[in-house]
Amino acid sequence: MGIVLGPNRYGKAETRLVRVHRDGDTHGLVDFNVSISLSGDLTATHLTGDNTGVLPTDTMKNTVYAFAREHGAGEPESFALLLARHFVETQPQVRTAEVSIESFAWDRLGPHSFRKRGDHVRTTRVSVTGETAQVVSGVTGLVLLNSTDSEFHGFVEDGYTTLKPTTERILATAVDARWRHAGDDTDWAASFAGSLEALIAAFAGTYSYSLQQTLYAMGARLLEERAEVAEVRLALPNKHHYLADLSAFGLDNPNEVFIAGDRPYGLIEGTVTRDDAPAATAEWWL
Amino acid sequence: MGIVLGPNRYGKAETRLVRVHRDGDTHGLVDFNVSISLSGDLTATHLTGDNTGVLPTDTMKNTVYAFAREHGAGEPESFALLLARHFVETQPQVRTAEVSIESFAWDRLGPHSFRKRGDHVRTTRVSVTGETAQVVSGVTGLVLLNSTDSEFHGFVEDGYTTLKPTTERILATAVDARWRHAGDDTDWAASFAGSLEALIAAFAGTYSYSLQQTLYAMGARLLEERAEVAEVRLALPNKHHYLADLSAFGLDNPNEVFIAGDRPYGLIEGTVTRDDAPAATAEWWL
Amino acid sequence: MGIVLGPNRYGKAETRLVRVHRDGDTHGLVDFNVSISLSGDLTATHLTGDNTGVLPTDTMKNTVYAFAREHGAGEPESFALLLARHFVETQPQVRTAEVSIESFAWDRLGPHSFRKRGDHVRTTRVSVTGETAQVVSGVTGLVLLNSTDSEFHGFVEDGYTTLKPTTERILATAVDARWRHAGDDTDWAASFAGSLEALIAAFAGTYSYSLQQTLYAMGARLLEERAEVAEVRLALPNKHHYLADLSAFGLDNPNEVFIAGDRPYGLIEGTVTRDDAPAATAEWWL
Amino acid sequence: MGIVLGPNRYGKAETRLVRVHRDGDTHGLVDFNVSISLSGDLTATHLTGDNTGVLPTDTMKNTVYAFAREHGAGEPESFALLLARHFVETQPQVRTAEVSIESFAWDRLGPHSFRKRGDHVRTTRVSVTGETAQVVSGVTGLVLLNSTDSEFHGFVEDGYTTLKPTTERILATAVDARWRHAGDDTDWAASFAGSLEALIAAFAGTYSYSLQQTLYAMGARLLEERAEVAEVRLALPNKHHYLADLSAFGLDNPNEVFIAGDRPYGLIEGTVTRDDAPAATAEWWL
Repeated sequence: MGIVLGPNRYGKAETRLVRVHRDGDTHGLVDFNVSISLSGDLTATHLTGDNTGVLPTDTMKNTVYAFAREHGAGEPESFALLLARHFVETQPQVRTAEVSIESFAWDRLGPHSFRKRGDHVRTTRVSVTGETAQVVSGVTGLVLLNSTDSEFHGFVEDGYTTLKPTTERILATAVDARWRHAGDDTDWAASFAGSLEALIAAFAGTYSYSLQQTLYAMGARLLEERAEVAEVRLALPNKHHYLADLSAFGLDNPNEVFIAGDRPYGLIEGTVTRDDAPAATAEWWL
Repeated sequence: MGIVLGPNRYGKAETRLVRVHRDGDTHGLVDFNVSISLSGDLTATHLTGDNTGVLPTDTMKNTVYAFAREHGAGEPESFALLLARHFVETQPQVRTAEVSIESFAWDRLGPHSFRKRGDHVRTTRVSVTGETAQVVSGVTGLVLLNSTDSEFHGFVEDGYTTLKPTTERILATAVDARWRHAGDDTDWAASFAGSLEALIAAFAGTYSYSLQQTLYAMGARLLEERAEVAEVRLALPNKHHYLADLSAFGLDNPNEVFIAGDRPYGLIEGTVTRDDAPAATAEWWL
Repeated sequence: MGIVLGPNRYGKAETRLVRVHRDGDTHGLVDFNVSISLSGDLTATHLTGDNTGVLPTDTMKNTVYAFAREHGAGEPESFALLLARHFVETQPQVRTAEVSIESFAWDRLGPHSFRKRGDHVRTTRVSVTGETAQVVSGVTGLVLLNSTDSEFHGFVEDGYTTLKPTTERILATAVDARWRHAGDDTDWAASFAGSLEALIAAFAGTYSYSLQQTLYAMGARLLEERAEVAEVRLALPNKHHYLADLSAFGLDNPNEVFIAGDRPYGLIEGTVTRDDAPAATAEWWL
Repeated sequence: MGIVLGPNRYGKAETRLVRVHRDGDTHGLVDFNVSISLSGDLTATHLTGDNTGVLPTDTMKNTVYAFAREHGAGEPESFALLLARHFVETQPQVRTAEVSIESFAWDRLGPHSFRKRGDHVRTTRVSVTGETAQVVSGVTGLVLLNSTDSEFHGFVEDGYTTLKPTTERILATAVDARWRHAGDDTDWAASFAGSLEALIAAFAGTYSYSLQQTLYAMGARLLEERAEVAEVRLALPNKHHYLADLSAFGLDNPNEVFIAGDRPYGLIEGTVTRDDAPAATAEWWL
């Protein structure tokens, strides 16, 4: 029996980049949170502290800022691929580079004035080796609610079940979704915009008998509308809204007054894929 | 020398209310976080645990939900006044009732589908006694940025000063603002919308030599445009964006690539008022 | 009618200082989060952006680090007084300096190894003018729980009351306390340790009929044991633990199984003071 | 080409349980945050909203509270196994049950008084099928710091490297560790206590040339001391402490005054395992 090093990686997390693009008086604004992770032959530093193969995480941070100057920063998928390929191509000891970007949207107020949106965060994670490049796009923190058209009944009942079936409830969730692209080259802006729209339209348009049904509808709609996407994963917390019981005060409550709960919450997780989807080349959404 | 009870109050904090207003197939959605605080003669419960004068905080919570059914929930200022007056009028031992509401905005997706906005939280705090009613409205978490038209120079330099004067920087802040109304009856929806617009317009439109100057411009603009408002308080964190030094890589940086900092941050706090503003009847923004 | 500037201040918030004190091989560790706020004649910068009287907030940050080297960093009250006096004495335009420090405790693991405690944050806030120096110490995030010896009954009941009286409940809170010192010179370490101990002992030792009663007991005990303290303020959220109703499963629940609630929560706020306490020279706990 | 359902699961997250164990006047306190996730044949609810195979998440919550009454709640691993086995054994459509528990420690103040510790959270995650039971224990939020005995040099330098080699720095991290047990039956309390002690001792006792070296030492020490553990995973953020440059003020800084940084941070992730470790039966730490 011996103790050995298993899988490992390292990098710089949460490098905060704001890039102003100046086109005369009209400015563009890009706001990224960039995390980089490299793996390869890193045994020496783990076993003896020999850093011969270790590019400092400080250098990764510098590279983010330098690349933003040299290449600009447009779509997060493109910027992430640029960074990841740089590390794989220039560092022989690096086998895989993963770059994740959170992208924050700003609404324009004027030629050089902006207001931050807070309704969702756009995410991307690329995994690049010498031979492969996998791109995953996503969204997190997108909160959606239907005030009707949601039922829940016909479920299993055991000795610990007290929930009553209902034909009318609020359905609300904070969408956490990631979708894996079949390739590494598409119109990322259009792809993201279309994917977001598909998710929202499916949520709003589905008469729902379970949040699972809504999850599947969201994933399927995205795949139907975006040919470049191979697979979708969703994690949907069921943000419970409990109907307030007002009977003690002589009041009815025809689905009008709700208690918004914090914890606990249901959590529905699922994958929607194509039966001919190319296999993933890297683990994703980890 | 004796030990005595000083000022005190109690209440229920963060009651989460979601109110659906049904007008046929088209639904409206109101999303509030309500906090209530009562004060008056509460000596007995502090000194001996005699609760004769204590309305349970659980009852305050119940009242929020019952009132939402009985009276609906529209503008947060109106709902807060309704609640506060109820406690002062029905509980003889209560001298002052304070009700604070955080209000979360949702964009409409369809007749009964909604998407939560996250760009700001609307706040209100009312303080009601038998004779007075003070209404404070506000906004928090509104993040604004100008990518130019901001300078900072001519400041004091002492032995610990290393900051270089600049004629070009990013100016960004997360607006935390509260404004006290002169009366307790106005068109709250129009007042809030107009106030928010005034703050944003002043931020975007001010060529700034200091964040203090921008703060004053924001408060003054709000007072100019909203006659119903007596006084404005602002707390503006200076969300620093540091110009990345890329010279080690042979690159210049003509105000394009910035490091968005977390801590520390400047914090500018100030009041803008009318010289004939009526006095406040309660402490505010505490 | 004119629009005018009201009260204002500015400074640097959340400068994160870690100070190692080396005594041979044995090291000491001080971990502070320092916020500084200055006020005085700041009209020019607000009205015209003339920064003649503005010491940059960047300089305040530098001063924190320089003073930590020059003077060391021991008790937070002393370090805050040192900084505040420096700004009032060296900046003629500054009338008042406020310095707040959050202090994080670490347990020793070895001569130069440490483990962060997370059970509370020690706070201080000093307000210094040319003539006065007010010191407020405090604690936040101290979570205490009694699993019995708490009752709640005899309260007001109105038409919205459904709470049942109880002679047995869990009482739990996250203590947020601040205490104002009569002077500006004491053994700060002993004072803090004794105050914390008094608060904890009073919570644990009070058979409680209301959280207000416990609050008063905590404040009174602190004043009884610490002659240097003039006044205590406490904000105690009532962290509700609801007895789980297991009757649907044929189970009783003799005060054993509880649902720990998040929101809403009761919030009890109060002051305990001496009838001969010297008046405060600055607003506190704002 | 068809769109199909891929892997999925669902459950109730963050059920907050507080369990008082009464042994006469002396009480014990257990504080858990329980999350449950089930998978199996859930196709119908996704495709058509047919909930025939769906045990409500509300029932999972009820089961947590009922089991706490029926069986008590002791070590989190045991309680998680009890719950997971219940769902697999009683629900024929459930193939796998995963139960995660966050456990919060309290220090005793008296026979029925407690003070919450905040220095770490103990975690467990069990994955149970009809044939297998995998138990992972862990700790998160454990913050450790060495004020010396840390160097970093000999690293790769490329065109974006500006970091200077150092033979003296602070090494600090917030330990996030999980360890997989070889079996499903051990003395969980002793195992956790011993594992925690091993991690801390290895951190404090390792003269470090890289955080990777410290990571490996921590994992190896845990495996050396705990025969029941098969594999350890660690994620160690490098909580950077930057030496303050005080030269502009005529001051040196012999490793005494540090700026504690927030973002970005290094992130070192790695696995330490036994070369004869039994294979994992479920994905873990996801």
